[in-house]
Amino acid sequence: MAKKKLKTKPKTKTSIRAKAKNTKSHSRAKRVVAKRAAVTAALQFIPWHTIPLEDLNPLLQRQFVVGQEIMVARVLLKKGCIVPEHSHHNEQLTYILDGALKFWIDGKEIVVHSGEVLCIPAHMPHKAEALEDTVDLDVFNPPRADWINKTDQYLRGKK
Amino acid sequence: MAKKKLKTKPKTKTSIRAKAKNTKSHSRAKRVVAKRAAVTAALQFIPWHTIPLEDLNPLLQRQFVVGQEIMVARVLLKKGCIVPEHSHHNEQLTYILDGALKFWIDGKEIVVHSGEVLCIPAHMPHKAEALEDTVDLDVFNPPRADWINKTDQYLRGKK
Repeated sequence: MAKKKLKTKPKTKTSIRAKAKNTKSHSRAKRVVAKRAAVTAALQFIPWHTIPLEDLNPLLQRQFVVGQEIMVARVLLKKGCIVPEHSHHNEQLTYILDGALKFWIDGKEIVVHSGEVLCIPAHMPHKAEALEDTVDLDVFNPPRADWINKTDQYLRGKK
Repeated sequence: MAKKKLKTKPKTKTSIRAKAKNTKSHSRAKRVVAKRAAVTAALQFIPWHTIPLEDLNPLLQRQFVVGQEIMVARVLLKKGCIVPEHSHHNEQLTYILDGALKFWIDGKEIVVHSGEVLCIPAHMPHKAEALEDTVDLDVFNPPRADWINKTDQYLRGKK
């Protein structure tokens, strides 16, 4: 197993517990929280090359690291790859490490080149096209459940 | 002004509002939330080169982008730079883009090289030393108030 989960003492359940207290089904939420905290509140040391690249469609590959409230993904897009318009409750920060992505967002067209950042508020619809082969670092809060659960059909060419 | 804040319609106060409802001082929290959301819940397009590099000490420079719940920082460390042991309530994900950092964390010594990630749970004390000139991308949730307010004396050689 390439991903190294190091033993540690989870001390950071406060924010998740606070959210749990805010739900109607408190006891169920507590169980969910306890399970999630046990899975994610650990020190993780992970070389990117040890994380398998997931093929989403012929022009799109992805790998990601999931923390407690942070997800960081490396998204590899071949020139011409189109990410259809979508939105999500997760805040997103896109940092282009190499290449260029054209975004359609908030009524504007914005080309984000290597060394540039686009910070996308939660719930804001956006579409993108790779103008070149691109390496895109996407940061999310909270982690994208649809990516983790592979229910992100909009990226897989399925409706 | 280099940083471009694009006009947008903030739609994303839900999670912060939920947190506000969870506090004892609801009305005060609502005011804080409203102020914060007005400042940060905007689409931002920011080339890194337009963000001034802050000199923290002769071996350490930093620049960062602040979203609503995400902060992403580029931290430039010269070989030999030491980040003294510290901890914070913010979850941290460190992605070394170039160089290498040695961490003392959770009773272990871990060298994180270029292309590797360390995911540090909230409240976990850690110290680091740059083994080479290093470009480090640090992701935080929530944003580091001490960095924003410049009260991060542990990085400035002041007690």
